[in-house]
Amino acid sequence: MALKRLISVARGKEPADLVLNNARVVDLVSGDIYPTGIAVAGGLIASLGDGYRGAQVVDLGGRYVCPGFIDAHVHVESSLVRPREFARALVQCGVTSIVSNPHEIANVLGVEGVRFMQHDARKASLDLLFTIPSCIPATSLATSGARLTGRGIEILQQEPGMVGLGEVMDFPGVVNGKHRLLDEIRMFRGLPIDGHCPCLSGSKLDAYAAAGITSEHECTTVEEAREKLRKGMKIFIREGSVARNLKALLPLVTAYNERWLCFCTDDRRLSDIMEQGSIDHLVRMAIAGGLPPVTAIRMATLNPAEHYRLYDRGLIAPGRRADMVAFRDLGEPRPELTFCNGVLVAGGGDVLKDWPADADDMREARVRDTMHVDWSAVDFRIPAEGNRIRVIGAVQDQLITESIVMEPLVIHGNAVSDISRDLLKTAVIERHHASGRLGMGFVRGIGLKRGAMASTVAHDHHNLIVLGVDDVSMMTAAKAVALAGGGLAVAEGDAVLALLPLPIAGLMSDKPLEVVLGQAAVLDAAMEKQGLSMDDPFMALSFLGLEVIPWLKLTDLGLVDVNLQKIVPLFVK
Amino acid sequence: MALKRLISVARGKEPADLVLNNARVVDLVSGDIYPTGIAVAGGLIASLGDGYRGAQVVDLGGRYVCPGFIDAHVHVESSLVRPREFARALVQCGVTSIVSNPHEIANVLGVEGVRFMQHDARKASLDLLFTIPSCIPATSLATSGARLTGRGIEILQQEPGMVGLGEVMDFPGVVNGKHRLLDEIRMFRGLPIDGHCPCLSGSKLDAYAAAGITSEHECTTVEEAREKLRKGMKIFIREGSVARNLKALLPLVTAYNERWLCFCTDDRRLSDIMEQGSIDHLVRMAIAGGLPPVTAIRMATLNPAEHYRLYDRGLIAPGRRADMVAFRDLGEPRPELTFCNGVLVAGGGDVLKDWPADADDMREARVRDTMHVDWSAVDFRIPAEGNRIRVIGAVQDQLITESIVMEPLVIHGNAVSDISRDLLKTAVIERHHASGRLGMGFVRGIGLKRGAMASTVAHDHHNLIVLGVDDVSMMTAAKAVALAGGGLAVAEGDAVLALLPLPIAGLMSDKPLEVVLGQAAVLDAAMEKQGLSMDDPFMALSFLGLEVIPWLKLTDLGLVDVNLQKIVPLFVK
Repeated sequence: MALKRLISVARGKEPADLVLNNARVVDLVSGDIYPTGIAVAGGLIASLGDGYRGAQVVDLGGRYVCPGFIDAHVHVESSLVRPREFARALVQCGVTSIVSNPHEIANVLGVEGVRFMQHDARKASLDLLFTIPSCIPATSLATSGARLTGRGIEILQQEPGMVGLGEVMDFPGVVNGKHRLLDEIRMFRGLPIDGHCPCLSGSKLDAYAAAGITSEHECTTVEEAREKLRKGMKIFIREGSVARNLKALLPLVTAYNERWLCFCTDDRRLSDIMEQGSIDHLVRMAIAGGLPPVTAIRMATLNPAEHYRLYDRGLIAPGRRADMVAFRDLGEPRPELTFCNGVLVAGGGDVLKDWPADADDMREARVRDTMHVDWSAVDFRIPAEGNRIRVIGAVQDQLITESIVMEPLVIHGNAVSDISRDLLKTAVIERHHASGRLGMGFVRGIGLKRGAMASTVAHDHHNLIVLGVDDVSMMTAAKAVALAGGGLAVAEGDAVLALLPLPIAGLMSDKPLEVVLGQAAVLDAAMEKQGLSMDDPFMALSFLGLEVIPWLKLTDLGLVDVNLQKIVPLFVK
Repeated sequence: MALKRLISVARGKEPADLVLNNARVVDLVSGDIYPTGIAVAGGLIASLGDGYRGAQVVDLGGRYVCPGFIDAHVHVESSLVRPREFARALVQCGVTSIVSNPHEIANVLGVEGVRFMQHDARKASLDLLFTIPSCIPATSLATSGARLTGRGIEILQQEPGMVGLGEVMDFPGVVNGKHRLLDEIRMFRGLPIDGHCPCLSGSKLDAYAAAGITSEHECTTVEEAREKLRKGMKIFIREGSVARNLKALLPLVTAYNERWLCFCTDDRRLSDIMEQGSIDHLVRMAIAGGLPPVTAIRMATLNPAEHYRLYDRGLIAPGRRADMVAFRDLGEPRPELTFCNGVLVAGGGDVLKDWPADADDMREARVRDTMHVDWSAVDFRIPAEGNRIRVIGAVQDQLITESIVMEPLVIHGNAVSDISRDLLKTAVIERHHASGRLGMGFVRGIGLKRGAMASTVAHDHHNLIVLGVDDVSMMTAAKAVALAGGGLAVAEGDAVLALLPLPIAGLMSDKPLEVVLGQAAVLDAAMEKQGLSMDDPFMALSFLGLEVIPWLKLTDLGLVDVNLQKIVPLFVK
């Protein structure tokens, strides 16, 4: 009946649900802008024309209208808020669909974690789609909370909103024909399979593409992106909070290849979303960098829709979802009104509903209380075994870390932090199974001068990572986040200076976004007091354990040489 | 295991099945041309690079390589040969995939007819995909041999090679919310649904697009195409034998909208395919008309692949089908070698296998003997009922026919043909059910001077259409095609001057293409002798009954006013 009604409304025989008058539609097929009305019925666009009647009529006063933005690849958990809160932030940015890869929560809670995200998103104001995480755990070089096996994947393939297989980060495994990976890939034959293969090239890249990997978002240079385009892979130009590749990659875009390019944010702080924006921010950056507005908008709408086979969106055209963004300035699009499925979700004043917390919800109970640590095994002392240590070199704005060799500062036979060289002791405490596993190392480049910082957000295994100047501060910070059920903490000595609790899986807050923003601001202020000047030390900290991004990382099993995919000793022989 | 092997071959660890050296690949994503080798394994491209070993090695000597061409919309039956023979012609043109709409044979034989085509194509050298015919019968204004109902559609949806719903020609039915059509459309929700709506515009066009129609191939003007693009519909630029729209539509193509455009042939004579080409011909025409070669090639490969969700082809890239065409001149691509699924199917000399006719094949027996005529009801005399008759005006190179009013030539009280005004009596004899139904009319513009021509190819109901100067010739021609089980015939008086038997459903020959070409040449020579100078009188004849293309047509039920969708009398009151 919805189809019959849609046709009838398009013909002008029945009133629409919503009519937008005086719009200037950005036609993404032709590149034209043209004035028209838009009639909406049943959440879909019925017609582009004038003279329609509707239950609700909005005069757009000549504003431009383009399709709602689509984030091609994003980790909701990195915002530190739950999906329905994340959506509240995003719709203000004109984002109406996101393709998330919930591998953070899947690493902690497996199938249940992914289901929680989708369940929570049912109350969201945008459409949350997801790829099934492919590498849970990412490798065998860290202990995750859960595994996602063939059976779990089968279950998730039935979940509404599933659009493909998530970033296959174990690219060495793929090109070496690892059985488990190939089995997974076969389960997604014919569907989008996203990739993640920074610095992969040559015949190994051919092999990875031949396996059916259809996208990549980890390019840092234009040359790297061009080689991957040549292998048929879509390139997602990513601009997150830490990983910022848009400026470097913009010269990649040509009139010819633009259809194969999308925008994504990947991991983005909530404050960055609120202050700068989401995909809208990438669109504005791209236009400011020289891209024609319609090109930039296509990369934010039609192109990701085509990639993920979302044929019901990505264009303002009859029959497609009424996901629309209205804005005034084509040279600097700032969303003023956002419609999702024909409903005004942002810009109408006080339309952002305040959803009550589901404290009794059985499903939510299952995603709390995920901190299980064997404290008896936690001792941060590192007896010196030589005069050369492998050090992780953090690089501002990059997820790639250098592998450096330095002389340790040894005091009373133990290797300790040395703030004069910005050399800080770091530990990763296994926190899912109370196994007692503990990885120890050193990191240069964080800049902390006093105390310690701890986090239960530590990609992708999300164990408890703590970094600090002295062991007491480190223990204080670690215990604080554990007690809160997960979180971020700054400590000095015995005192907890700031704490942002993340009781949902140890990854997300259960509070509204405004509260979390406030808590994060307090955390930032505390970090500054401790001598940190870098942009987002906690986000940098959270990637020090990501053992699939070159070149040296730390997990609960120890230091990982990413290229060799092996645990290596702290002390160099 | 195929996946594991493909990866291994890409890595250079195992020999490929086929290696093409010294190729210049046309990169359809970037628009670049670059030199490389191509390694193929298991019918798929493993790698683009040099130094590979293979069971078979071919030196392309610098030839360009692009993906095999894809015909976005074609009726195999219009070639008059069966699918496996059609494929032999097409692979020489570099076509490796076709999306056929088998509504001709479906109109005669329903589900069985469609299955025969797919079965026959299993022996073809290219990949024959199909859309499920949507309007069988096209309307209620003609008698078809079979109906295709919901149950038949469900059965065909399970058939391998099914890619969507075929051209929904009953656009008036769609925009009026006809139940049967909407039911069909709902069965294809989310899949490609092809359209057919010449001259449809305004809010009715919105309604048609809103219903989910995703393509159109019946545009004659750039303005018409632009309006349809604006509604989100893909435009297939069609160049057939009779319907030739490429020249008029080429100005439509811009760098921006090209991704939404494809090429198709629709209905093309076998001789035109052999002499001029298929999709390769359209590519050459487009380049000659000013399109950049890579743009034209995209419209012939990547764009139709994307439209029909054929993600395994349309690009020369690892993991995709090894469907490839090699040619020397980028400005005028003439396929020299054609590979389909990694196998050389054209250009290797005597590689075109000669398949034995399956005379005993049970399935084939079911598609023969489809002529059932009640000859007792066939009388071509038209008693004059007035001094004004509606006349069908055939237009050279168009399927659209004019609706003209003329004064009949009346002899002995009967309206007869008048060759001085090129006014020829035409009859449509119902031939599926021996119902005795007979539609009579007049056609101007065919140019026949003597005798008669008859055909059992009469879109889409495929009854027996016969046109001629006198009734005796008409009866001779009609009986000749009926006796042959279907066909095309030229007759004069009692003599059959030429006959091309089409015993498969009354639509296709069971002979190899070389034989059919010879028979068609004899037919053409006979037509010339009878005074015809137009290009393809039989193809023009075959469209005189297509009651969904404006403005006046003839079926077994009588004259059809296409706009009103009603039978109208021959004599004007």
